Amino acid sequence: MTGATTDSPGALMGAEIAEQPAVLRRRLEHTADIDAVRERLRAERPRFVLLAARGTSDHAALYAKYLVEIRLGLPAGLVSPSAYTVQGARPDLRDVLFVSVSQSGGSPDLVESQAAARECGALTLAVTNAPGSALARGAELSIDIAAGPERAVAATKTYTAELLTLHLLLSGAAAASDAVALPEAAARTLELATEERLAAAAETCAAERVVVSGRGYSYPTAREAALKLMETSYVSAQAFSGADLLHGPMAMVDPTVPTIAVVSPGRYGEAMAPVLGRLADLGAPVLRVGAEGGAGGSGVAGGGTAAELPIAAGGVPEHLLAILEILPLQRLALTLALRRGVDPDRPRGLSKVTETR
Amino acid sequence: MTGATTDSPGALMGAEIAEQPAVLRRRLEHTADIDAVRERLRAERPRFVLLAARGTSDHAALYAKYLVEIRLGLPAGLVSPSAYTVQGARPDLRDVLFVSVSQSGGSPDLVESQAAARECGALTLAVTNAPGSALARGAELSIDIAAGPERAVAATKTYTAELLTLHLLLSGAAAASDAVALPEAAARTLELATEERLAAAAETCAAERVVVSGRGYSYPTAREAALKLMETSYVSAQAFSGADLLHGPMAMVDPTVPTIAVVSPGRYGEAMAPVLGRLADLGAPVLRVGAEGGAGGSGVAGGGTAAELPIAAGGVPEHLLAILEILPLQRLALTLALRRGVDPDRPRGLSKVTETR
Repeated sequence: MTGATTDSPGALMGAEIAEQPAVLRRRLEHTADIDAVRERLRAERPRFVLLAARGTSDHAALYAKYLVEIRLGLPAGLVSPSAYTVQGARPDLRDVLFVSVSQSGGSPDLVESQAAARECGALTLAVTNAPGSALARGAELSIDIAAGPERAVAATKTYTAELLTLHLLLSGAAAASDAVALPEAAARTLELATEERLAAAAETCAAERVVVSGRGYSYPTAREAALKLMETSYVSAQAFSGADLLHGPMAMVDPTVPTIAVVSPGRYGEAMAPVLGRLADLGAPVLRVGAEGGAGGSGVAGGGTAAELPIAAGGVPEHLLAILEILPLQRLALTLALRRGVDPDRPRGLSKVTETR
Repeated sequence: MTGATTDSPGALMGAEIAEQPAVLRRRLEHTADIDAVRERLRAERPRFVLLAARGTSDHAALYAKYLVEIRLGLPAGLVSPSAYTVQGARPDLRDVLFVSVSQSGGSPDLVESQAAARECGALTLAVTNAPGSALARGAELSIDIAAGPERAVAATKTYTAELLTLHLLLSGAAAASDAVALPEAAARTLELATEERLAAAAETCAAERVVVSGRGYSYPTAREAALKLMETSYVSAQAFSGADLLHGPMAMVDPTVPTIAVVSPGRYGEAMAPVLGRLADLGAPVLRVGAEGGAGGSGVAGGGTAAELPIAAGGVPEHLLAILEILPLQRLALTLALRRGVDPDRPRGLSKVTETR
C-alpha cells in the first residue's frame, strides 16, 4: 500500500483492508439507525430468526446465527434462498424475523426470497452497504452498514462492517459499549501483521491445499478466510468447525496440508485444544491466529505451531474477536496472491455482483 | 465384493453399500413407529424446526431442512451444538421441534444439546440407529432408522436410512407412497455403477483436489460425497451448492480440478445449468451424476462431461433422488480408496464414535 496506485496489483484490496479501523469507528459513532431497529424488534418480539445471504455475507450471517442463539436467546436458521426461488416454498413465517445480508443489495435470489418471506408473514430486515438497493427498498426495515463504496472484487471492509452492524443489532443494550475498544484493536491488529509475520505465514501456507478451522464465533472467520484464499490465490482452502474436522475430514490432513487454526482467547478458542493436539500428532504445520503473546493468552498450547498471526484481543469480548481475526487473514490472502503473481483485484471468473437464482 | 472376506480392504464398506436396497425396503415395510410420531407432531403443531447432527448425519439433517422448508412449510435451522455445550446458550425454544440425528446416538455434544433444548421448552426427537442410546433415551420422541448394525467406519447405509426416515416423517401423508419405487431404483442404480463406469469416474477424479456441487436436495449429496472422498481416499474434496460455487470459489477451478456435478432430473438439477456452463468454459473435467440416458433426462446439456454415473430416477420424485445420487458416489469413494492402496475400513485417524463437545 506504500505509494501504490490503484493500478498496482492488489492496491484496491490492500487499501480497503487498511480502511477497516476507520470504517468500524464510523459505524460505532452513529448508531441511532440501529438503535431504532432494535427498538422496533423489542416491540415486535420475533420468536425465530432466519438469515439469508450469499458468499462473504453468508459468513456474516453465520456469525449472526451464533449471536442470536447465544446472546439474543432465540432459535435461528440460515435460509436456503433456493427453497423459495427454485421450489416456490411458502412456509408459515409468522413471528419470524427474516434478515437478509448483502453488500450490494442486488442479488436477485435474495430480493426474491425476501419478498416471499414478507408474503409469508415474516418481518423483513435488510442489512446492506447500499441503502438504495432493491433489497433495502424491499424490506420493512433496513440498516446501512456504511462501509463506503467497496471497489475491490474481494470483499473485506464490508465483511467486518456487517459483523459489527449485526452485533450492534443482536447483542443487546450493552453492544455499543462492548465494542468501544474495537477500532483501536483493529488498527493494532493490522500493525501486528508485519511483513515478516506475513512472509512466515505465507511460507507455511504455500501449498495447493489448506485447511482452516475455528469454532463458534471463529468458525465464520475460518469460512471467510478460506473463501478469500480461494478467490484471490486460487488455493483449495477448506474450512471446518473444529468439531466437524474431527468427524472425518481429519483423515486427509498430513504433513503436506497446512492448517490455519483460529484460537482466540475464550471458550471457543479453548475448545480447539483437541484439534490442535491431533494436528500436532499428525505433524501438520499450523498457522495460529490468536492472542498476541502466544499460547498463554489463548489458553491453548502451541504444539506444532509453525507461524503466528496475532490479534490485539485486549479489552475486546470473545464474541467480537471475529472482527479482529479476519484482518491478518485478509492480509495473508493478499500476500499469497501477489506471491503467486495473481492480481486479487482482477480474479479470474468473478464479478462484484453474482446473479444466482 | 465378489467373494471378499471381511478382511479384504473395503469389504465392510462394500457390503454395507450393497445392503442399501434391502435396508430401504425394510424401513418402508413397517412405518407404524414413524406414523405415530407424525401424528404426535400434528397434535403438537410445532412452528419451527431445529436439527442437530454431526458428520454424515449432518448431511441428512441438511436434507431434512429442505424438506421442512419446502414440503412441511415451516422455518428451519441447523443447530450449532457448541452454542449450548461450550457457551451454555439457553434460547427460548417453545413451539420448536428439536430433531437430533445420529447413527450411534452416542455423541456427547448431541446428548447434551438435546437435554438443554428440552429444558428450554423444545419438543425433542432423536433419529438414530441405536434405540437404546443415550440420545434416543434422552428424547421425548425417538425413531429407529433400523439400518442394522453398521460396522464400516465410513457411514453409508445409515445415511440413506436417515434420509428415508426423515422423508417419511416430514414429507406429509403421501410420503410412503412417494417412496414405493425407491428400493428397486436403488438396486438398479447400484447395478448401473458398473466397474467400467467406476473406472472412468475414478480416472476423472484422480486428483488431489476435487470439487463436488449440487443444489437444493442434491446439495447434501455433494457434501456427503465430499466427506466420503476425504474419509476414505484422503482427497481434498470440497462441496459447494451450485449458487455458492459461482460466488467466489469458482476462481480456483481450472482444468486440473475435476468437478463432480449432481444434476438429477427436476428443478434443482435444471438450476445447475449456469454452473455446468461455467465449468465447460473453464475446461474443467466434469463427472456427471444424473438420470440414466444422459443430458436429455436431466434437462441439462452435458457440455464438458468427462464421465457419468447414472441413477435410475424413473418413478422417484425429485425430493427423493438424493437417496439414489449418493449410491454411485459411495462406490466411487471405495474404488478411489482401493486404487490408492487405502483400506477404507481402516481410515487413518478416525473412529466410529467421535466425541466432541
